Amino acid sequence: MDCKRTIVVALGGNAILQPGQKGTDIEQIKNVNKTCIQIAEMIKMGCNIIVTHGNGPQVGNILVQNSTGACNVPAMPLDICGAESQGLIGYMIQQQLKNVLNGMGIERHVVTLVTQVVVDKNDPAFKNPTKPVGPFYPEEYAKKAEKEKGEKWVEDAGRGFRRVVPSPEPVKIVELDAILSLINSGCIVIANGGGGIPVVEEKGTYKGVEAVVDKDFSGELLALNLNADTLIILTDVPKVYVNFKKDNQRALDTVSIEEIKKYQSEGQFKAGSMGPKVEACRRFIEKGGRNAIITSLDTAVKALEGTAGTHIVK
Amino acid sequence: MDCKRTIVVALGGNAILQPGQKGTDIEQIKNVNKTCIQIAEMIKMGCNIIVTHGNGPQVGNILVQNSTGACNVPAMPLDICGAESQGLIGYMIQQQLKNVLNGMGIERHVVTLVTQVVVDKNDPAFKNPTKPVGPFYPEEYAKKAEKEKGEKWVEDAGRGFRRVVPSPEPVKIVELDAILSLINSGCIVIANGGGGIPVVEEKGTYKGVEAVVDKDFSGELLALNLNADTLIILTDVPKVYVNFKKDNQRALDTVSIEEIKKYQSEGQFKAGSMGPKVEACRRFIEKGGRNAIITSLDTAVKALEGTAGTHIVK
Repeated sequence: MDCKRTIVVALGGNAILQPGQKGTDIEQIKNVNKTCIQIAEMIKMGCNIIVTHGNGPQVGNILVQNSTGACNVPAMPLDICGAESQGLIGYMIQQQLKNVLNGMGIERHVVTLVTQVVVDKNDPAFKNPTKPVGPFYPEEYAKKAEKEKGEKWVEDAGRGFRRVVPSPEPVKIVELDAILSLINSGCIVIANGGGGIPVVEEKGTYKGVEAVVDKDFSGELLALNLNADTLIILTDVPKVYVNFKKDNQRALDTVSIEEIKKYQSEGQFKAGSMGPKVEACRRFIEKGGRNAIITSLDTAVKALEGTAGTHIVK
Repeated sequence: MDCKRTIVVALGGNAILQPGQKGTDIEQIKNVNKTCIQIAEMIKMGCNIIVTHGNGPQVGNILVQNSTGACNVPAMPLDICGAESQGLIGYMIQQQLKNVLNGMGIERHVVTLVTQVVVDKNDPAFKNPTKPVGPFYPEEYAKKAEKEKGEKWVEDAGRGFRRVVPSPEPVKIVELDAILSLINSGCIVIANGGGGIPVVEEKGTYKGVEAVVDKDFSGELLALNLNADTLIILTDVPKVYVNFKKDNQRALDTVSIEEIKKYQSEGQFKAGSMGPKVEACRRFIEKGGRNAIITSLDTAVKALEGTAGTHIVK
C-alpha cells in the first residue's frame, strides 16, 4: 500500500500492560516495543500517524500509590494523576517508537503532548458516575469517602468497593493546534493519552475535573478534528463479533452504519469494552470520516490494507 | 520594552512548591498561577518564551509513593518517575499560563512536550553519584539497597539515609526539532522538565538511566540549541551574592565571565543551589549567548528590562 493517509491509532490498555502482568517497567516497555513495531510498519507505508492510548492500569496504579498517604505526601486529584500517566506512557511510546524507527532507518521525530480535553459541565454523566477508577476498598472506607468527599462508590462483584467517576463526552481538544503544527512538520504525535485530561471551560478558564474521558470517544474527536482518513482502534480481538462467546458467534468484516445500529440496539456490545469502540467508529463515519476499523495489534497493518479487521462503512 | 527575543525561562522548585508547604494540588496550582502571571508579562512584551522547570519536590513525592509497594504496585525507575513529573508539572503550567493569557486577551497556545535528554554513559558522574533523590530511610534499608541493587546511599545530617544518583551533563535534547517546530508556529513551549528524562544513546537506541540532569545545565543546552537571546534562571533571591549571609555580603549586578570565574574558584556559590545556576549562565555566555540573568520571580520582568537581577556578561 502506498499511503499518504492520516491515521489516528487508538491503543487499548493491553498494548501497554497485559492482563495477569504485574506492571513492572520491564514488562510495560517490552509490550510497548512490540506495539511500536506494528506502528512503525504503518509509518513505513508513508502514513501520518497520530497515536492515542488508554491509561486504565497505569492511572489505577498511580491512584493506589496516591491513596497510601505515605510520608504525608498529599494525594493528587484525578486530573493530575491522568497528567502523570500521560508522561509515563507517552515517554515509553515515544522512546520505543523512535528506537524501532531508527532500527528501520526511518528518520522521524516522535513526541508526546500533554493534552487537555474540554468536557461540558452540564454533561449528564456528572449526575451519574459510572466509570470505576483506582483500587478496591472495604465498605467502611467507601462509605466514609461518600460522606466526607461526596464521592460515589459501588460494590464490585465481591472484590470490595470501588470509586466511580463520571465519563463525560469530549467536546474540544485544547492543544489541537499544536498537534496539527507537529503533524505538519512531519512529527509522529502521541496525544490525548487516557482520553485526555478532562477539564471544564468557564469564561476562558480551564479547570481539571474528577472524571475520565473514554479514550475511544476522545480518539474519534481527534480523528474528526484532524480530518484524518482513518480511525483504527486496536484491542485484544481481531474483529468485532455478534453473539460474542455464544454458539452462534459471528465475526463482522464490513458492516454498514445501519447494520451496526441494529446490533447496538440489541445490546451486542459490552459497555466499557467493545461498546464505546463500536460507537466511536460509527460516529466517526456518520460525521464524515472515511475509514473506521476495529482490530487487534497483530492484524493492524493488514486491516489498513483492507484484508483484516472489522470495517464500519457508510 | 518591545521584544522579539527568544527567552528560555528556567523555573526553580519554589515557583511550584514552596518550602514548608505540604504540596497539595491547591498549593501547587496557586504557586504556578502566580508564576504564570510573571511569564505572561514576558509574553505580553512579545517575547518567544520557552519554559523549563525543576521537579525536585514532585519527583521526590512520586518516589515516596513508588517506594511504598502498596497493593503490589511495582516501583517505577527514576526515568519513568521523571516522565510522570513532567506530565504533572507541565499540565499545571500549561493550564494556568493559558488561563492567565486568556484573561489578558492574549491568544497563544501553550504546550508541554515530554522531553528526553541524552547523557554520555562515560560521564564521570556515573562513577561518583552525588544527587540525593527520594525519601529518607533507616540505615539497614540503605545497606540492603546498596548490596542488592548496587545503589549508592549516603547519610544526610542525622535525618537518615538517602539514595544518591549520578548527575551527568546533558549532551543532546532528543525532541529539539519538535520544540523548534512548535516555537516557529507561535506556541509557548514547556520542555526539558526536571532537566529532561536522562537517556543514553547506543547505536540509535535510547534507554532511560537512573540519573538526574541538572535543570539549569539542561536549560543552558536548550537556550544554546534554540539560539535563544536570553537564559533567565529564576530562584528565591533577586540577585547573586558573594559572601552570602556574611557581614560583607555583596549583591552582583553586572558581572563579567572573568569576575564570575574568580568567585567560582573561591567557592562562593553552593553546589546544588547557586553553583549550577552561575555555571549554566557563565557557559551560556561563553558559548555565544547574549543575555544570562539570575533573579527571583518577582523581579524577572524588570531584570529582562535591565533594571534588576544579576547579569552575567562577556
